[in-house]
Parts: sequence; structure tokens; C-alpha cells
Amino acid sequence: MHGTDIPNAGPSEAATTVGALATPALLLDKDRLDRNLARLSSRMAARGVVLRSHMKTAKSIEVARRAYPAGPGPITVSTLAEAEYFAQHGFRDMTYAVGLAPHAAESAMRLRKAGVDLKVLLDSSEQAKILGEAGGAAGVTPSAFIEIDCDGHRGGLTATDPKLIAVAVALAEAGVRLAGILTHAGESYSLCTPEALVAAAENERAVAVAAAETLRAAGHECPVVSVGSTPTAHFAEDLTGVTEMRAGVYMFFDLVMHGVGVCTTDDIAISILATVIGTKREKGWILVDAGWMALSRDRGTAAQRVDQGYGLVCDLCGKLYPDLIVSQASQEHGILAIRSRSAVTLPDLPIGTKVRILPNHACATASQHELYNVVSAGSDAIEAQWPRMRGW
Amino acid sequence: MHGTDIPNAGPSEAATTVGALATPALLLDKDRLDRNLARLSSRMAARGVVLRSHMKTAKSIEVARRAYPAGPGPITVSTLAEAEYFAQHGFRDMTYAVGLAPHAAESAMRLRKAGVDLKVLLDSSEQAKILGEAGGAAGVTPSAFIEIDCDGHRGGLTATDPKLIAVAVALAEAGVRLAGILTHAGESYSLCTPEALVAAAENERAVAVAAAETLRAAGHECPVVSVGSTPTAHFAEDLTGVTEMRAGVYMFFDLVMHGVGVCTTDDIAISILATVIGTKREKGWILVDAGWMALSRDRGTAAQRVDQGYGLVCDLCGKLYPDLIVSQASQEHGILAIRSRSAVTLPDLPIGTKVRILPNHACATASQHELYNVVSAGSDAIEAQWPRMRGW
Repeated sequence: MHGTDIPNAGPSEAATTVGALATPALLLDKDRLDRNLARLSSRMAARGVVLRSHMKTAKSIEVARRAYPAGPGPITVSTLAEAEYFAQHGFRDMTYAVGLAPHAAESAMRLRKAGVDLKVLLDSSEQAKILGEAGGAAGVTPSAFIEIDCDGHRGGLTATDPKLIAVAVALAEAGVRLAGILTHAGESYSLCTPEALVAAAENERAVAVAAAETLRAAGHECPVVSVGSTPTAHFAEDLTGVTEMRAGVYMFFDLVMHGVGVCTTDDIAISILATVIGTKREKGWILVDAGWMALSRDRGTAAQRVDQGYGLVCDLCGKLYPDLIVSQASQEHGILAIRSRSAVTLPDLPIGTKVRILPNHACATASQHELYNVVSAGSDAIEAQWPRMRGW
Repeated sequence: MHGTDIPNAGPSEAATTVGALATPALLLDKDRLDRNLARLSSRMAARGVVLRSHMKTAKSIEVARRAYPAGPGPITVSTLAEAEYFAQHGFRDMTYAVGLAPHAAESAMRLRKAGVDLKVLLDSSEQAKILGEAGGAAGVTPSAFIEIDCDGHRGGLTATDPKLIAVAVALAEAGVRLAGILTHAGESYSLCTPEALVAAAENERAVAVAAAETLRAAGHECPVVSVGSTPTAHFAEDLTGVTEMRAGVYMFFDLVMHGVGVCTTDDIAISILATVIGTKREKGWILVDAGWMALSRDRGTAAQRVDQGYGLVCDLCGKLYPDLIVSQASQEHGILAIRSRSAVTLPDLPIGTKVRILPNHACATASQHELYNVVSAGSDAIEAQWPRMRGW
């Protein structure tokens, strides 16, 4: 006995309601998504700054189309597989915002040769030389951003590093077009007051503009000044000199962004649907069938003022149970418990009860799933299933 | 311009050597896999205990075939999608070792109806009734394990809980066959001395056997006494009364298991291939193109005596760089640094250098990838690419 006589393990018919979905499953609230998209795009439009949305969170053409309803817009990608996927769906203007590796230079130039205006990121003369050679081999002129380090978060050169000019010179010598400078205020994720976020945004802007001015003063064209992180995108008060903003997690938001102070829990557009499989009242536990495989191992709120465990628990309609969190997770089991130092009583959730879990980190949680089950507020209907892409 | 004119973003030809692979990528050392498989299967054979390997780590038919070279053997699965996948490849004897949800009962009974001897897990009379109804609806006799809690780790009933007999009675009344009892010494993952591991294994055995004896004394057949976790499987000295052992991560091992004391770093069969994309010598950092998307967010060693960050770094041949760990990870970037309080100097790794990263948790890291690039010690050749399954 082999193969085709085995039925699909999922429900015998495709579920059309949230209540009928097999769990765990990823839900996406379309109304919240649209509201989050509109919030940042109108904020940037008001400031005359291009919004180059980062697709690393959603990894979905359907979400990208909602972000750019008028047709393919400028996007940021985190892998070359994303670049390929969005290009196959008509997007052409994109920035691959990960420091360039030699094999990535070759792949990027193949995409460029195929008509994709793919810009890459680097911060060294070695990378400039590698990119120039890859462009030459592919018969295209590469376009690259120099990565600027505005807060010590990761890669990039400081605005005052003498290497900045050296890299620009190396790009010119290698036959690479300088697209501009790019920075990311990654340290803003660890902040939690409006004042600190405003200051982080202003620092990101000021460092980016200073780097661009340094290049221009040395005779290098630097058309694009690209900044961005979801917190700074929402708290920047002045964007003078900045030409584009990058952000990704703003589409969905999550508990980390809630802890930073960028959104409310009512803005969080994705949740994990799970089913109660048992209760251990003597331990104060409710067991569900969503563990870290469904929620991800991300514990980003552990370093924040309020630790949300592996997520906050809502009922099927999205209403939060007071102080109920996913306190522990193994691969396919989650343990719900009342937050420590709370006087709230564990709710009575019989076996089979469905709950929705708001995630710590939308990028990590969504990546554990094949597709989004699209829902709207106030309705049990699954309106669509939007696939996600993955890989590199 | 749309669609088919976009080239594949990967290498223009399929890589045949590790050196030519696009990164990040998952490597599986076949020799280490085979050694790990042989170690536990010979240990269990010597004790006359069935090894029911857990497929939640590998999720690969090729790995399962290496674990059971004589043909499909008894397996454990963590999702019904795994049950379906392995059934389609000829496996028939399996246990779904996650507490039963109502929709899972229905799906499991459909698989049972198709000839898969799928046993399920429960610990309440409510679940027994739900399962009986699902069996009745599908026209099959369900078979279930009662979950026993041996160490307070997760679900299950203690061996002395009066509900144990009540659940067995509920199963009989619902027309469900009692397969036996099943327990998992999950707390063994937090131990780190041979003495403590031997004691945890003996506790797991003793509780399991006591529960089975309680059921038998009350007139219930309890044919299978199933225990298991990778640490206790390797440290159990006496398995009297136990009929089967379950373990999964033993196939690959990882840094958490190394911290527990079950394996050496030379036993760890999977690693993540990454490429150096920059150096910040002033900060003591080397940047690579593998972040948490490739490594997973699992920080399981953080609670151990030696915190390995997001993983230990080896050269392309698998030799460890002294005290070099992945100290930080963002989505597609990893930061390599020398472990704190080490006097070792940061190695000089130019842009383009490839490294291999040993993961904290093999189940989590492997799940971030589509396939295993299969290699052997001492060779740069990729011998095969083994797909992984995912989802629920």
C-alpha cells in the first residue's frame, strides 16, 4: 500500500469560516492591514517622502498589491528569492537591503539583466569591486547604495568615516552607479517613549543627510537618501533631506511594536488561531495546539517593560482575555497562563475552544506559515487565502 | 513586462559543491546522521525496546528511510500533515504525540480509515468521547494513548491521579482501544549532569510503569508503555517494563543537547552555511548573511551553563573557530563575535568567506529550510538534496 490512497490530513472540505479552520493557522485581518497601510502611506505622502515598503514581513504579492493599489511601487526585499518573486508579479523597482555577498552580486546582476531595477547594498571597496565584476560579466551597470551606520546597530559606515569617500571612489572605478545612501535605525526597537523615538528618528535623518552631503561635497552624486524602521517612520517629525522611507512590520504590527509604543493591540493584523486541548487547573495552565512552530521562537518582548511570553490571547472575535499569555511553548504545544502578579482568574476554556494569539514579532510568526487566512472584523468568514513565499 | 522573463535568483546552475552553494543554506552531514541513528538504535536493540523515532526534527522521508533501512518502521509524528506525508511514503505504524483537538480527531480517523495505524494521545474523558464519536463517524475503531505526566513538564495525568482510571473507562465506553500509556521527560532538557539524567530516565520509567500497572490492576489492557526524550533515551540504565522509546533530535543533535551532555559538537549533523559580508573590527564583529530566518530565533542555550548565542561558528570543513559565536541575529544578518571573557582574537575572515554555524536547536533551525544539502565528512561535494515537509 503506497501513496495515492492516503487522504489529505486537513479538513475534508476547505474551511470557509474561522470556526471551521484546522489549527494552528495564521489569520490576517484585512481591515487592520488596510488601516496600517494607509496610516504610514498618508504620513509619508504628507511629507513628500517615497514609501519603499519592505516586503520581508508579508512576503505576499496580495499584501504588496494592497500596499500599492495603483500598481507596482518601489519595494525593499530581504532576499533575492523575494526579488525574483515580486519581479515575477510585475514589481521592478526594488532595493535588496542586505550587505552584498559575492554570489548575491551575481544573482542580482542576472535579475538586473532581465529588466529589474534592483539596487544592492554595500559598505566596502571589496564589495564595490566584486559588484563591478559581476555587472561586467552580466553586461549591466550595477546600482548600489552605500550603507550608513546611524546607531551602531549592525553594518555600515559612520557618516564621518573616511572610508565613505573611498567606497564611492571604488564604486566609480568599478563602473557601479551610486544610487545613494541607506541607513536603518535598528536600535529604535529597544526604545519605548515618544521622546526617545522622535530623537532616534531625527538622529537617523541627520546622519543620513550628513553622509549624503559628505559624498556630494566630494563630487559624488547621491540622489537617494533612504532611511527607515517602523518606529522611526511613525515618529519622525522632520524629514528634510530624506527622499525615501523603508518600513515593513508596520503593515501587520505586533507585540514588540506595541511595547515600543507604535501601535495598540487593536492594530495588530495577524494572529494565530489555536485550539484548547486540555487544562491543568492545579498549575494554572490551559494547553493549546500552537507551540513555537506556529508562533515562532521569537521572545522579543522579554526585553521590554511588559513581557508578553509567546503572545497575548484573544477569543475568536479578537477580544483580549485579561492578562492571559502564552507562558511557555514547545514545538506543537503552547501553555496559556495568567501573567505573574495578576489577580485575574484563569478563564474556563473547554477542550475544543478556539483562541487567537497576537504574536511578539510579525516577521517571525508569519514566516512559520504557508498562507494567510484573510478575515474582516466582525465576521467569521474566510474571505481569501493568500500564499506566502519563503527561502533565499 | 510580466512573469516568465524573470530568471531564477539562485545560482545559474545547481551547485554541486558546498563552496558553490548560495547562502544561507542547510547542510546535513550524512556520516554524523548515520552514526547518531546507529548509536540509539543499537542501544535500544540491546535492551529489547522498540525505537519509535520522532519525525518532528527531520520531517524528511529520506532521513526516515535511513533510520529504518529495512523498511518502514514505527514512528512518532508531531502534526497530522507529517502523518499524511509519511503514510504517503509507506509508513503505517505511527503515534501522533500531541494532545487531541476535536478537528484533529476527525482528520486522524480519516487516516485510520485509509489503513494508517495512527494512534492518538489524550488525557481527559472529554477527549475520549470526542474521539469515540469521530471513530464512529468514520467507521473505524480509534486507538489512543493516555498521556502521563512524569515531571510536570506539560500535559498528562500523574500516575496516581484518580482520573487515570476514569479516562480508561471513558475510552472503553466510547469504543476506543487503549493503546497504552505515553510519557515524555521534557524536563530532562534542563539538566546537565549524567547523574541527574540517569535519575530523570529512571523517574520517567518508574512513573510510566506505575501508571500502566494501575490501569492493568483495574482490568484495563495496557499493551504499550512508551517513554522518551533524547536525553533520557541515552542515559536510561534500566528500562524494565518499558516497551518503546521515542526520540527525535538524537538524529541531528544540537548545541542544547551538547549543553545537556548527550553529544559532542562533532556529533552535530546539521549546520547553516553562511557567507561573510563585512567586518567591524572596532566592535569585534564579523557580519554574515545568515540571521534568525536561517538560524531560527531559538536561544535554548541561553539558560544553560554555556550560552552559545545563536550558534557556534566553524570553517567550511567543520572545524570550530575558538570561542567564535553568532552573538546577535536580525532577520537576514548575523553578527559573529568572540565569546565574552575570552582572550581569543577575532579571526580574519575576508568578504566572501564561507562558514558553517552549528545550531542551538535542530528542530527549529531545520524547520527554517526547504531542504537538506547532504554532505559527507572530508568532501566538498553535495551528494543529494533531501526535501523537508512543513505545515499542519
